[in-house]
Amino acid sequence: MRGFDNSEFAARTERAQRRMQASGLSALLLTTEPEVRYFTGYLTRFWESPTRPWFLIVPASGKPIAVIPSIGAALMAETWIDDIRIWTAPDLMDDGISLLAETLREVSPNGARIGLPDGHETHVRIPLADLRRLQQAIGPREICGDEGIIRALRMVKSSSEIAKIETACAIAGRAFQKVPEIAKEGVALDAVFRRFQMLCLDEGADWVPYLAGGAEQGGYTDVISPATDTRLQRGDVLMLDTGLVWDGYFCDYDRNWAIVSANAQVKSAYGALIEASDAAFEIARPGATAADLFQAMNSVLSRGDADTGAGRLGHGLGMSLTEWPSLIPTDHTVLEPGMVLTLEPGIAVGDKILVHEENIAITEGEPRFISPRADQELPEI
Amino acid sequence: MRGFDNSEFAARTERAQRRMQASGLSALLLTTEPEVRYFTGYLTRFWESPTRPWFLIVPASGKPIAVIPSIGAALMAETWIDDIRIWTAPDLMDDGISLLAETLREVSPNGARIGLPDGHETHVRIPLADLRRLQQAIGPREICGDEGIIRALRMVKSSSEIAKIETACAIAGRAFQKVPEIAKEGVALDAVFRRFQMLCLDEGADWVPYLAGGAEQGGYTDVISPATDTRLQRGDVLMLDTGLVWDGYFCDYDRNWAIVSANAQVKSAYGALIEASDAAFEIARPGATAADLFQAMNSVLSRGDADTGAGRLGHGLGMSLTEWPSLIPTDHTVLEPGMVLTLEPGIAVGDKILVHEENIAITEGEPRFISPRADQELPEI
Repeated sequence: MRGFDNSEFAARTERAQRRMQASGLSALLLTTEPEVRYFTGYLTRFWESPTRPWFLIVPASGKPIAVIPSIGAALMAETWIDDIRIWTAPDLMDDGISLLAETLREVSPNGARIGLPDGHETHVRIPLADLRRLQQAIGPREICGDEGIIRALRMVKSSSEIAKIETACAIAGRAFQKVPEIAKEGVALDAVFRRFQMLCLDEGADWVPYLAGGAEQGGYTDVISPATDTRLQRGDVLMLDTGLVWDGYFCDYDRNWAIVSANAQVKSAYGALIEASDAAFEIARPGATAADLFQAMNSVLSRGDADTGAGRLGHGLGMSLTEWPSLIPTDHTVLEPGMVLTLEPGIAVGDKILVHEENIAITEGEPRFISPRADQELPEI
Repeated sequence: MRGFDNSEFAARTERAQRRMQASGLSALLLTTEPEVRYFTGYLTRFWESPTRPWFLIVPASGKPIAVIPSIGAALMAETWIDDIRIWTAPDLMDDGISLLAETLREVSPNGARIGLPDGHETHVRIPLADLRRLQQAIGPREICGDEGIIRALRMVKSSSEIAKIETACAIAGRAFQKVPEIAKEGVALDAVFRRFQMLCLDEGADWVPYLAGGAEQGGYTDVISPATDTRLQRGDVLMLDTGLVWDGYFCDYDRNWAIVSANAQVKSAYGALIEASDAAFEIARPGATAADLFQAMNSVLSRGDADTGAGRLGHGLGMSLTEWPSLIPTDHTVLEPGMVLTLEPGIAVGDKILVHEENIAITEGEPRFISPRADQELPEI
């Protein structure tokens, strides 16, 4: 149940290679955790250390080649990868760059183009000076963008990937169910955050990389602040938004609770959020676009108000907490079966906001909620 | 007790500006979580989302300028930063680059050099294509390296920073004390990992970004693999290595336990690890180098064995799990009061390894253990 069959990695690699051929790329060069893991299954929390660079090369044909610090050799050898080239990192003079250059020269002829993800939501996880050294060391080969290949592949999940996200969602669902046991009037918000992470672990999370939330009178100010020791008060709306991980895959959704009770305005706003996510869910089928889902939600949220200032109303998720596409007016990505999305409408209530979030999977027909659906009315605790 | 006085950020900024002047840099451009937080105190787990870029500019004089997505505006406004420029991200056409370029043109004259950290242990957390667009948009100004300024500043901690690391260390220490309550013969390793993270939270961790470890007969194979469901057996050595966070600062140390009992070879190896870290501790004073500490440990570890294959035997820590310097033969960084280091000797035992780790602070005189010291003999549970 954990991990994937090797056939999954072979299929991912072949899909990449077909696109590479179409784009005239001789190799892909990958440097970030999800990129390396996508083609290898290499799963470790060691990426938390920024010290060492890691490289994976997807050649035009055959299996990927790992060029990695020796500390990772044993674990990488447990994956389907055969060609593992190592150096002792950190090396202050040459931290894998000459070994990487040698490998790239081997798999890419002179004049070839090597694709490095360079677009939206990417970064290159190696020192910039080393990237410049690498370009010099590979001579008449060009490092260019990856033509969106990684984005296109990762955006459409296999059923095995969706099952992992669904497991993460179910774990969070059980933890959310138990929030009334840890949160009530008089309890400090930071204690709620701490206890909620413990609940997530207790219910089966491997770890809890992300928790955000808030609790203020009738809503909250933003959804990214750390918790303070302010105690929950009657009339607060408590929101917890978690991205917990099971076997390397995230869920990402939130839940709201009224502390003791909520006023009519808050209840109504919560109802609008549920209605908005339902509206997007209704049309979330192959052929609809990310922008269509935004508009479906925004038309509910902006009823009677020309501008809610709504930003992004959802996004993809999977190996990362947030992935492509973005549910914004300008993202015209066409939905396909296998995409996993969050529907994340937000609404202003006076000078506060309320946010609601669900996770769904796009199928051939009707979409499927993979987060247990939130209550239709704001629960009170 | 949480956060810092504004004077701390002012002092960090002034130190950076003095070095910038000496290096002929008109501004620093920062893109990663610890870099932005170092000068602002901006603390959020939202960086887990790779979608949005964040920028901070340290000009030649005056306070830093934040160029950030609007979703972060409210939280940034709570810091000492006054000049906060926002755009609605994600923007698929221009994700902050023109706003950033405009700001850089404002603070940097034509021909000026703008420092972007580009050396060891750094990366640029924005799309590579956007970095290229930025260079074009700022015209006759050069983006170059930061001359090691950020590294030099972050490597030497204030007493307030050390107090936070020490708090994290104390939390982990209390959690380690309770491991005998959650780990014993017959318990699966992944359950131990899960329960240990819960202990860390219960003892006061804000979150637990890093946990690694292992448990096999007479040692373990590596220290970066995720836990499996293999049950602890008599004769295993269990190791847990955690990087938990309190108020944005990490501890990073491990503990070992023999399950029921250990053989003489394992006990002896454990003793050598304690002796090795003590040897480094003894000489860890201003004027000694990172390489000196490596040699002090390695001379204990390699007794009677010409080559132990020892890699890095420790490193800095603070806002990141691992920071400069590296305790390796080629890192000649001179120790200064305020540095916080891990001493992390490792030793081979047959085909397995044992690793031990402590955290210390460098002072004017004797160093100080900030992790509660490990037992002198391998504890049995």
